[in-house]
Amino acid sequence: MSTIRITGADAIDLRFPTSDLRDGSDAMHPDPDYSAAYVVLRTNQPGLEGHGLTFTIGRGNDLCVAAARLLADMAVGRTLDGIVTDFAAFWRSLASEPQMRWIGPEKGVVHLATAAVINAVWDLWAKSVGKPLWKLLVDLTPEELVSTIDFRYITDVLQPEEAVGMLQSMAAGKAQREEDMLATGYPAYTTSAGWLGYSDDKVRSLCAAAVEEGWTHFKIKVGADLADDRRRAAVVREAIGPARRLMMDANQRWDVDEAIDNMRALAAFDPWWIEEPTSPDDILGHAAIARSIEPIGVATGEQCQNRVVFKQLLQANAIAFCQLDSCRLGGVNECLAVMLMAKRFDVPVCPHAGGVGLCEYISHLVMADYVAISGTTENRVAEYVDHLHEHFLEPCVIHRGRYLAPRQPGYGITMRPETLVQYAYPHGPVWAARQLAAGAAR
Amino acid sequence: MSTIRITGADAIDLRFPTSDLRDGSDAMHPDPDYSAAYVVLRTNQPGLEGHGLTFTIGRGNDLCVAAARLLADMAVGRTLDGIVTDFAAFWRSLASEPQMRWIGPEKGVVHLATAAVINAVWDLWAKSVGKPLWKLLVDLTPEELVSTIDFRYITDVLQPEEAVGMLQSMAAGKAQREEDMLATGYPAYTTSAGWLGYSDDKVRSLCAAAVEEGWTHFKIKVGADLADDRRRAAVVREAIGPARRLMMDANQRWDVDEAIDNMRALAAFDPWWIEEPTSPDDILGHAAIARSIEPIGVATGEQCQNRVVFKQLLQANAIAFCQLDSCRLGGVNECLAVMLMAKRFDVPVCPHAGGVGLCEYISHLVMADYVAISGTTENRVAEYVDHLHEHFLEPCVIHRGRYLAPRQPGYGITMRPETLVQYAYPHGPVWAARQLAAGAAR
Repeated sequence: MSTIRITGADAIDLRFPTSDLRDGSDAMHPDPDYSAAYVVLRTNQPGLEGHGLTFTIGRGNDLCVAAARLLADMAVGRTLDGIVTDFAAFWRSLASEPQMRWIGPEKGVVHLATAAVINAVWDLWAKSVGKPLWKLLVDLTPEELVSTIDFRYITDVLQPEEAVGMLQSMAAGKAQREEDMLATGYPAYTTSAGWLGYSDDKVRSLCAAAVEEGWTHFKIKVGADLADDRRRAAVVREAIGPARRLMMDANQRWDVDEAIDNMRALAAFDPWWIEEPTSPDDILGHAAIARSIEPIGVATGEQCQNRVVFKQLLQANAIAFCQLDSCRLGGVNECLAVMLMAKRFDVPVCPHAGGVGLCEYISHLVMADYVAISGTTENRVAEYVDHLHEHFLEPCVIHRGRYLAPRQPGYGITMRPETLVQYAYPHGPVWAARQLAAGAAR
Repeated sequence: MSTIRITGADAIDLRFPTSDLRDGSDAMHPDPDYSAAYVVLRTNQPGLEGHGLTFTIGRGNDLCVAAARLLADMAVGRTLDGIVTDFAAFWRSLASEPQMRWIGPEKGVVHLATAAVINAVWDLWAKSVGKPLWKLLVDLTPEELVSTIDFRYITDVLQPEEAVGMLQSMAAGKAQREEDMLATGYPAYTTSAGWLGYSDDKVRSLCAAAVEEGWTHFKIKVGADLADDRRRAAVVREAIGPARRLMMDANQRWDVDEAIDNMRALAAFDPWWIEEPTSPDDILGHAAIARSIEPIGVATGEQCQNRVVFKQLLQANAIAFCQLDSCRLGGVNECLAVMLMAKRFDVPVCPHAGGVGLCEYISHLVMADYVAISGTTENRVAEYVDHLHEHFLEPCVIHRGRYLAPRQPGYGITMRPETLVQYAYPHGPVWAARQLAAGAAR
């Protein structure tokens, strides 16, 4: 293949009307329309494109699309080699774009958009070498992998040389671990049974079906009302029995003292973790909660904005589980930084997923974490939600409660061409039809 | 006046080509084009409008404008009374809009946009009662003022009843303090002399002129190169003498250990504070720096995203000066929350300003802080930068190094009508002319 050059970029606003069925409803997000700011990097090679997306839940997705467009332009004209040879520098040029960093920095809209662009570059890289992303990652030398990471603001807990040493120390057994993943996959858990908007009967029958399918870990949403939380926890605990693990997710609904009180009240149902008990920005608050509700573990991450917040959550012993998000962080490079810090602090990485595309992304990240970084699946489960996978060319595959290893080249996020047309917002056929229907009903 | 109802809203993209002269240049932002996402709330009352803006430095300002438009729509159709009677609930409805909170939450683009809309409501309220914003604030009862604040995520350090008590305890002397402000104003400091892009000679002559004008506190930019920082610190220290105060601002350029080392090297120039020594997200990092460089105080805030981060900076003894930003925080309501927490922890509030409009905003906030909340100017100085004031109908007034009390009704941010036309981006005359010139030069 001749030199691969990025010749153009598109950013598309895709939205799925999930609020109709209250899929994904929780205490803070009652009516999400799962959405994606979807980036395509075109190249000078016929048929070779990099695809990436960032996930949002509806209104404001257009802001991420506009930001992704500005950032993707910075890749246009560059060669793939030129980018990945000093990937950390390219990453920083996006994450700290001199004018746009003011409206972050490294957080919110601009950082979500950074993820879409950066992940599209990784997809392009993986496709160009004919490997699934996870395989590309585990085949990099320790030095190569570490060279993709911007260590700004984390050198007080992890220096590049230490990271290289940590990766080198995992060389033994790496080939065996890769075989493990190819043979049996990575343990997962399901959130599909416990959405807040579902009735008790629906939760009960979903739990029973999931037990049948081999699931061992179950998560429910809490936080809207304590009496309601107790009732639903009892329904789930009864349906899954005492041996399977029950996790709870408050979606940031509580203040610090409230979280402590409520989790003491819910301890009777033996939760393994409480997820997002309070503001994702409250490192010291999470640490206070963690100290007060042991042995229940505190988990957070889906809205933790960047590596600097994860660094502190780890420093402060605030989390027992690190739930990094493949789009909230600025793409693979920053996910690797967080995975390495988590390894350093011996905290399991249990990535956030669901939404649209997040399961596809993390099926790669957990494989790489197991094979090259952590070397274990102990106390580790990756989230799985069974929504919207039909839109991907190579949807993630779950079997008996485990993510199977992706086999196709790329980062697995490329959507079906018809989805890109049908769900385009606001003018694609799905949305145009809804506007017509809304007009007729008036 | 009959019931005031908000009947419509506009959001305008304004940009000023400040990068031409490197005004505002620093180690992280070499070429800012000072910009504003400017909101106008129209009403059913002839001539009565609420104006508010959020400040950015160029690219991406359109994202804030788009977000402000979405959020401002939530005010349209509401009465002013209906909003301000339960202002905390209205504030939360914007800051936690169920779909848009995903792309924050309460940070970055959406939170900057929240400030523009919320500040426009305060401007409208102040104009409707014929008072400058600061006077409206100090005339509210403690209960009324506290009712504007959303205490979510801060009740572990401050409860509403405690806040009311703190304000009640300041009733004695309040009338006298208001007279003080009207007579002499609030102490300020200047940043105009020390921009990183200026030559030593320019810095020297600007310092000499500022001493003549009565300034007592001077701030310089550091962080690009230590040898350069030493040289420039020596220039400024020599120009202002040993008695006046010198502050340093690293604009987030350093990692934690680097900040400690560099400030030990710069201690010889007797800095009063080091501002933004590292990532604005690094609460524990600021605390480590603060412990290591005493008696130099650590200051930060212009990019601290919300009250939750300020809460922790205060809890962790990480800052000696609280530099809240009137646009970075979600408008007056959240600024009040931070000012009350700072009072609780006995940390001086020294607001960030500069940019466009920030000096106008903070001239109101520091008056209210002194009269109703802190009751003192000890160790307090408000930032002043002498750029772009000519665009406001009632620019802030500085006399002998002090902000004079604003006298006109409103929050002081209403711009001249011709500015709104001339600097509109990208089609206003100033920008259209530049595009023509750029085209001709090609």
